[in-house]
Amino acid sequence: MEKFELTILGCGSAKPTTRHLPSSQVLNVRDKLFMIDCGEGTQLQYCRNKLPFSRLNHIFISHLHGDHMFGLPGLISTFNLLGRTAELHIHSPKGLEQMMKPLMDFASYDMSYQVFYHEFDTNEPTMIFEDRTLTVTTIPLKHRVPTCGFLFKEKGGLKHIRRDMIDAYEIPIAYINSIKAGADYVLPDGEVILNERLTNPASKTHSYAYCSDTIYLPEITDQLQGVDLLYHEATYAAEHAIKAQLHYHSTTLQAAQIAKDAQVKQLVIGHFSSRYIDDNMLLEEAKSVFPNTILAKENALIVIDD
Amino acid sequence: MEKFELTILGCGSAKPTTRHLPSSQVLNVRDKLFMIDCGEGTQLQYCRNKLPFSRLNHIFISHLHGDHMFGLPGLISTFNLLGRTAELHIHSPKGLEQMMKPLMDFASYDMSYQVFYHEFDTNEPTMIFEDRTLTVTTIPLKHRVPTCGFLFKEKGGLKHIRRDMIDAYEIPIAYINSIKAGADYVLPDGEVILNERLTNPASKTHSYAYCSDTIYLPEITDQLQGVDLLYHEATYAAEHAIKAQLHYHSTTLQAAQIAKDAQVKQLVIGHFSSRYIDDNMLLEEAKSVFPNTILAKENALIVIDD
Repeated sequence: MEKFELTILGCGSAKPTTRHLPSSQVLNVRDKLFMIDCGEGTQLQYCRNKLPFSRLNHIFISHLHGDHMFGLPGLISTFNLLGRTAELHIHSPKGLEQMMKPLMDFASYDMSYQVFYHEFDTNEPTMIFEDRTLTVTTIPLKHRVPTCGFLFKEKGGLKHIRRDMIDAYEIPIAYINSIKAGADYVLPDGEVILNERLTNPASKTHSYAYCSDTIYLPEITDQLQGVDLLYHEATYAAEHAIKAQLHYHSTTLQAAQIAKDAQVKQLVIGHFSSRYIDDNMLLEEAKSVFPNTILAKENALIVIDD
Repeated sequence: MEKFELTILGCGSAKPTTRHLPSSQVLNVRDKLFMIDCGEGTQLQYCRNKLPFSRLNHIFISHLHGDHMFGLPGLISTFNLLGRTAELHIHSPKGLEQMMKPLMDFASYDMSYQVFYHEFDTNEPTMIFEDRTLTVTTIPLKHRVPTCGFLFKEKGGLKHIRRDMIDAYEIPIAYINSIKAGADYVLPDGEVILNERLTNPASKTHSYAYCSDTIYLPEITDQLQGVDLLYHEATYAAEHAIKAQLHYHSTTLQAAQIAKDAQVKQLVIGHFSSRYIDDNMLLEEAKSVFPNTILAKENALIVIDD
């Protein structure tokens, strides 16, 4: 089973409380780490969860509000202190580089590594990252400033070689990669051995969608269809639906409705307003619409393994 | 007894550990709060210690390194979220305003209150703040960037009226303030009542000095003579004296030597390097030179009451 798991570093909203930390999480896809948002205190949470700094090369920032990005200066500086040499790539809506520059120029002169800012448009779903393992596509959201969620989609893996069959047909090693990719094999006598006889199916691919912050936006359900895990903000309880709309946030019921309409496998709600002392009330509300819902929680690890 | 007490919010150094937080502390002088340094996570520590935001109007930043100031964007934004209207004054070496401007312009547009930056020269001791209660004077230090410590000195208070004597001599209320300030009183028949008969002495005044970050700098002891409490950085153990010098930091023994030479009443050491797992070893070293030493610790409250 290939690793696909999410660590929640912070799931509170902007007003500080002692119950939650501001937004940040780390998605681990086959031991490559992808950070999503970076609120104040993220670097410490990262250490607390014993995540290796060396495996983090990409950070995705949903929007330029402090509770989603004020951890960046500290994280970037710490990488420098640790003598990092690998490039760091930060993906965000327009404006981040300009905003960070004077602070970083002063605080982290003499950098041991390079930071690259990639700024994306927030109007259309756009693939902003791709490697052998996965793609990352923006999910246009609607908040008080330009905002996008992110859809992480694992690529189809290679098939698994059946060692017994390879041995039986005495297939040379040079052919293994093409067989893993789906090719049949032709024996010296011309007989064609179909790929299905030589391999077991590739592992299932996984997907994760992060949607925060946003007003209730039913049109995103198309893009979210069937994802394994959806993190959707639920800043407010149902009774505060008007406040939610006013501040361009969602309620528990709205988050759950999105999950239901998109037929996702599991929903995790977060970005809780500081006004709620008991998050379980929020959970119960969401579950009334979408039963397979869990609460985000600092330092929780959510493993996707089916 | 007038309140004069220090809360340690963070006393680690730049590299994050799960044992300490970066530098910040709050001095409470008669219920006015003064913040000294503001590392990442300070606003949360402030809440954790149940310090009231409304009583904080002045922040003093020792130098422009991230672990002493990366908590500012979050704190400033949170004040805005809370609808603060009182002015906030930030005192620092040159460059902070320019560094913060683009970040704050974007992240905290539409501010409910004004932030004033006061930038001081770091070469000469300078009184940078004064009110009815106290003065704050810079202590020029020597670090890799322009750095100052801060000396907080309570002003002499008014004498305490002896109610019994005022009543006995039937002194009108209009004279009370001048008597508190030290005046004698002349009875209608010309008899002079000396001030000492009418008052008890004013409360003792207190002083606190913060020195971080700095290389061992014996010349500051003049300015520190006899302070009630000295916080001096002790980033390194004695065995790492060469490293300390190289990085413009101090060792435990050097911090204690400063305390001894300045004849301070109590020393608290902090800004511990992440390399030390057991701070008590650092404490024992410092105590070997200056016995009345304590360790800084997150959320510790140090009350000066003699």
